[in-house]
Amino acid sequence: MQGNRLRESARVVTRYRAGHASVVEDQVAAEEPMETRILWEQDGQLPRKSIAVTMRTPGDDFALAAGFLFSEGLLATRNDIADISYCRDEDEQQAHNIVSVTLRPGLVFDAARLNRNFYTTSSCGVCGKASLDALSISGHEPLVSRHQLAPAVLSLLPRTLRAAQPVFESTGGLHGAGLFDNDGNLIALKEDVGRHNAVDKIIGEQFLAGSTPLDNRVLMLSGRASFELLQKALAAGIPFVAAVGAPSSLAIDVAEAFGITLVGFVRPDGFNVYTGRERILT
Amino acid sequence: MQGNRLRESARVVTRYRAGHASVVEDQVAAEEPMETRILWEQDGQLPRKSIAVTMRTPGDDFALAAGFLFSEGLLATRNDIADISYCRDEDEQQAHNIVSVTLRPGLVFDAARLNRNFYTTSSCGVCGKASLDALSISGHEPLVSRHQLAPAVLSLLPRTLRAAQPVFESTGGLHGAGLFDNDGNLIALKEDVGRHNAVDKIIGEQFLAGSTPLDNRVLMLSGRASFELLQKALAAGIPFVAAVGAPSSLAIDVAEAFGITLVGFVRPDGFNVYTGRERILT
Repeated sequence: MQGNRLRESARVVTRYRAGHASVVEDQVAAEEPMETRILWEQDGQLPRKSIAVTMRTPGDDFALAAGFLFSEGLLATRNDIADISYCRDEDEQQAHNIVSVTLRPGLVFDAARLNRNFYTTSSCGVCGKASLDALSISGHEPLVSRHQLAPAVLSLLPRTLRAAQPVFESTGGLHGAGLFDNDGNLIALKEDVGRHNAVDKIIGEQFLAGSTPLDNRVLMLSGRASFELLQKALAAGIPFVAAVGAPSSLAIDVAEAFGITLVGFVRPDGFNVYTGRERILT
Repeated sequence: MQGNRLRESARVVTRYRAGHASVVEDQVAAEEPMETRILWEQDGQLPRKSIAVTMRTPGDDFALAAGFLFSEGLLATRNDIADISYCRDEDEQQAHNIVSVTLRPGLVFDAARLNRNFYTTSSCGVCGKASLDALSISGHEPLVSRHQLAPAVLSLLPRTLRAAQPVFESTGGLHGAGLFDNDGNLIALKEDVGRHNAVDKIIGEQFLAGSTPLDNRVLMLSGRASFELLQKALAAGIPFVAAVGAPSSLAIDVAEAFGITLVGFVRPDGFNVYTGRERILT
């Protein structure tokens, strides 16, 4: 059953190349949340604890749960596992995003062995739709900025970003995030080993300066665009996100639901538009 | 004071090019943990809560803390912040890795607004050395595997990995992790939108098959090598980690402390060895 989960997702994309736009179908990498739970026998009961939620590409989910618990020191050998299965209590879409690991009889889960606390969720469910619903519940509304960007300006943003990344030049090892105005002028640049940190630094600096919401700005990413990065752009009111790399399925879903223009594979000769084409000047 | 933190770190590297090895000094991106704390006035006291620990490149730390709290919905305007500063209670190295955000008088932190729980730590401190100490405390010991790899075999691993990544080929959007034997044969390959997930899937599959520790295997990463990925390799007993991208400073520190060979920038014509050169055949 694990093998049947979709690892990619077909999306309609507008492809700009050398000044011409064409509409094509393209494959994007699937991104969905997955929750790992531990269950153990204690006093005739079967208590359970949610250990972590991670955004992952579906497939090999039992290996993912086991590998995570093992590398965190919560499992020592495979015999520590009595059963590993998808959750049976939930509707199907969510059930395939919850992996329950039942410990062998006699092995009691000890929260004290968990010397780190991981990202978990108390939202309404564990699936792509629930992740979007959680953003609405948090009060986020679709962005309505009417600012537009010229294709020629957009194509050059990665070059400007890269030229301004001092630490990347010397180490080859950092993610960059840039904030641009609609004429392609670089407003701010941050680098970090973590791509979410680079975006937090960009947004935080503007927030501290009292400049949010950033409704006339473009966020340029040196790598890929994931759910988490689109969520941050939404929180800051940034209506335009461009990436050198590919977007995930859930990043596209957030952009679509909240009126964000999402562009990927930005190169000197073109780019792919996944959502919000009306903000590209024609 | 923020501007003084080092964003890069000089390391001695053995550079293999076209069959020749030379020892050079190279710059790598700095990686250090940072803890974000919230403090607020309540009944004449100043309670505090640790919100998250993230592995980041030092610099712009106040922007990072503010951007994170804002994009998670814990801050609405900059006036919500009465003070933002490094921790004053700890020794200097740790103090610069702890950012305290004090809320304006009257604004009480409500844990219920935090609809997600983030990675936090209860380890002995917040700095690179403390992160290494935590691994020792968890019972990890240096790996002693004497298996060796030929430079010519190593140089070809990225090509083999890429050729075997089916979803990357169609989407351009996934991290890959490969497990190889010492002759360069691909044992397992996993892809994911999250690089840590790809590694957990690799390790988890071997764990479920009863094949850990993986002391005669090479872990190949399609991207960069960070602290977290080295920690996972250590847990699985993998003595050799190779990356297409660059390693961070803390990844090198883990590899050095725990006897892991760490190689970066692997290309058809060469690679850089950061630690454990004795596992490269000469």
